[in-house]
Amino acid sequence: MSDHPQTMCPRFEAAFEILGKRWTGLIVRGLLQGPRRFKDISEMIPGMSDRMLAERFKELEAVGVISRHVYPETPVRIEYQLTEKGKALQPVMDAVQHWGETWCFKE
Amino acid sequence: MSDHPQTMCPRFEAAFEILGKRWTGLIVRGLLQGPRRFKDISEMIPGMSDRMLAERFKELEAVGVISRHVYPETPVRIEYQLTEKGKALQPVMDAVQHWGETWCFKE
Repeated sequence: MSDHPQTMCPRFEAAFEILGKRWTGLIVRGLLQGPRRFKDISEMIPGMSDRMLAERFKELEAVGVISRHVYPETPVRIEYQLTEKGKALQPVMDAVQHWGETWCFKE
Repeated sequence: MSDHPQTMCPRFEAAFEILGKRWTGLIVRGLLQGPRRFKDISEMIPGMSDRMLAERFKELEAVGVISRHVYPETPVRIEYQLTEKGKALQPVMDAVQHWGETWCFKE
């Protein structure tokens, strides 16, 4: 940033356009544990509606953070997993976790 | 997270409740450069309205990430700066910046 004292780095903005949406961080955090089905993530985040999760999954797939895999079993099994780009968010999630543990207290 | 395989850490959720709002990351990033006036931050983020910035400033002040200082000069000077809690977001911002530089490309 030192060479951009007055404006924001466009790539920082692009990153926050993805990460700055509600629930996105929690969804990525959940998928860092490995591939998961829709229901698994939905159960991890009780405050989020299924409709919202479907929307977020689509967005994250569109920006290349997650991929969707359909296994032609009976019944069909659909899993979501992080791409390399998504897995590279681990240090971001760790930094947020550390900050949250140090500074955020839910009453 | 290893001891919470099925649910999210409440502090991680709390952290993302703050950081996951649109513009918050960019505002904090701007204030990591030092105390700034309303107009300074407003000019750094052209896509954000002043009304939105005022709202975000209030929220960040309420959660203890920034503080507001009024200098009784003529004309009065008002500056916003990060608290210790806010400054502790530096590693989060660095991690996002690094990820953005590696993986995000604006056309």
